[in-house]
Amino acid sequence: MKLFSGSPSTVRIVEVGPRDGLQNESKPVSTAAKIALVDALSEAGHRHIEVSSFVSPRHVPQMADAEEVFRGIKRKSGVLYTALVPNEKGLERALSAGVDSVAVFTAASNTFNQKNLGCSVAESIENVRGVLSRAASGKLRIRAYVSMAFVCPYEGTIEAPDVIEIVEQLRDMGIHDISLGDTLGAAYPNQISRLLEALEDRFGVQRFALHLHDTYHRALANALTGFLHGVEEFDTSTGGLGGCPFAPGATGNVATEDLVDFFEGMGVATGVDLEKQRVATERIRAELGG
Amino acid sequence: MKLFSGSPSTVRIVEVGPRDGLQNESKPVSTAAKIALVDALSEAGHRHIEVSSFVSPRHVPQMADAEEVFRGIKRKSGVLYTALVPNEKGLERALSAGVDSVAVFTAASNTFNQKNLGCSVAESIENVRGVLSRAASGKLRIRAYVSMAFVCPYEGTIEAPDVIEIVEQLRDMGIHDISLGDTLGAAYPNQISRLLEALEDRFGVQRFALHLHDTYHRALANALTGFLHGVEEFDTSTGGLGGCPFAPGATGNVATEDLVDFFEGMGVATGVDLEKQRVATERIRAELGG
Repeated sequence: MKLFSGSPSTVRIVEVGPRDGLQNESKPVSTAAKIALVDALSEAGHRHIEVSSFVSPRHVPQMADAEEVFRGIKRKSGVLYTALVPNEKGLERALSAGVDSVAVFTAASNTFNQKNLGCSVAESIENVRGVLSRAASGKLRIRAYVSMAFVCPYEGTIEAPDVIEIVEQLRDMGIHDISLGDTLGAAYPNQISRLLEALEDRFGVQRFALHLHDTYHRALANALTGFLHGVEEFDTSTGGLGGCPFAPGATGNVATEDLVDFFEGMGVATGVDLEKQRVATERIRAELGG
Repeated sequence: MKLFSGSPSTVRIVEVGPRDGLQNESKPVSTAAKIALVDALSEAGHRHIEVSSFVSPRHVPQMADAEEVFRGIKRKSGVLYTALVPNEKGLERALSAGVDSVAVFTAASNTFNQKNLGCSVAESIENVRGVLSRAASGKLRIRAYVSMAFVCPYEGTIEAPDVIEIVEQLRDMGIHDISLGDTLGAAYPNQISRLLEALEDRFGVQRFALHLHDTYHRALANALTGFLHGVEEFDTSTGGLGGCPFAPGATGNVATEDLVDFFEGMGVATGVDLEKQRVATERIRAELGG
């Protein structure tokens, strides 16, 4: 059996630690430390860094300094510095801050959407449409997260047709890049495979990234499953920081070091220097632990 | 892509915690606690338990009570109670103790064999032959471990031809069941795949088990790789106990709970009751920690 014969020779890492990692840490982190983290990550070779989130400071106080972080970082050529935006107001702030790209989001579960965003899936997609209509004139790259794409803490297993419907709408709005979130880290490889199988027939696999959490130590097995399906983009967080404040039981994202080592060890280039990556992680860990 | 279409619908777990786990714990464990562990494991549904090792008590003092453990356990019908035997003397002891099956071992690396067993690979295979010649008359089931089948701490990557040569000799001696050890937990999925590909052409995949360690969190991804190749037998250790005293840097075997949950979550039956398994683990952990 030739398991690896069709798999990609390189993968792209989207480093979400400064945003998805830090927003879920209870200890406040200084703006200077956030800037140092983003710069250490670009130094380590990352080409796509989610720097911050332009959400309401009341809602997510850890991200209140998004503008200052964007102002302080050393912009390295070839690196995409992105931010999460929840709505049109966030987009305005992101554009003023000079982001290269924005990430929008919805979830595949209605219950989770209601509890997390205070609206239905359909309403959150309309919200994305509103952001997009303004972003288009700015020629921004847009990436969409579909969280709880496999398992929801309230609804259990999410079935493929629900995800397909959301992906169709996002595609029809012109969004190419879609990151499928196993937000709880509760998916199993065969479920990852089943969804990708259903999606690849309709949309191809190239537009999909996997956003995996390592709650039950299955992140690498799930990443492998995606990789064997041809997925070339994976979200990771430096040191495995993060979780999800609205998802009971979710622990951190898969650690960047683990995924980089996993792929590099298989001869699959990630562009990330593992030693420098580890230095970046040690520094932010010291900051959080100190 | 149909990744899971040819994969097995059940897997067999070989629980090696009482032997491979405990022999590598520095804290001595009482004979009574060992007996309780084996009985808790058979209660949890395990069908194949490696109970102890008939090695020299001077070499591995933790296993000096092998006879007493075998005498004390409640033999459950349908359960294979096995022991590791290093040589003919160990076999005599194992036979007297009434084992159902014995495990013999060699390593795929000459340097590791020299340092671990004090002999070459060829000599260790001759040793296995000696054990076998005596065991045959007893109609014992024999299982062989090939440790360091992927990576050796001294020699680095082990190439498939070296493993094939050993497997050929073991097969020619009449040994059907062969467990391939990633003793350091250092293998990557593509290496697991490469070796299985090479082996399955010559020997079929049915005779092979995977003995994985979780040192770098790759055990589940490596198990998945084996499973996708059709491997149906996996060695695990309750609570992830163990390591290898002769292999620098190796941490525990993949935890039984992790692997059972991994497969059961994919609808692949293991026969092990996860709740009872967790109870068995908690008890031995309390013993080791107390």
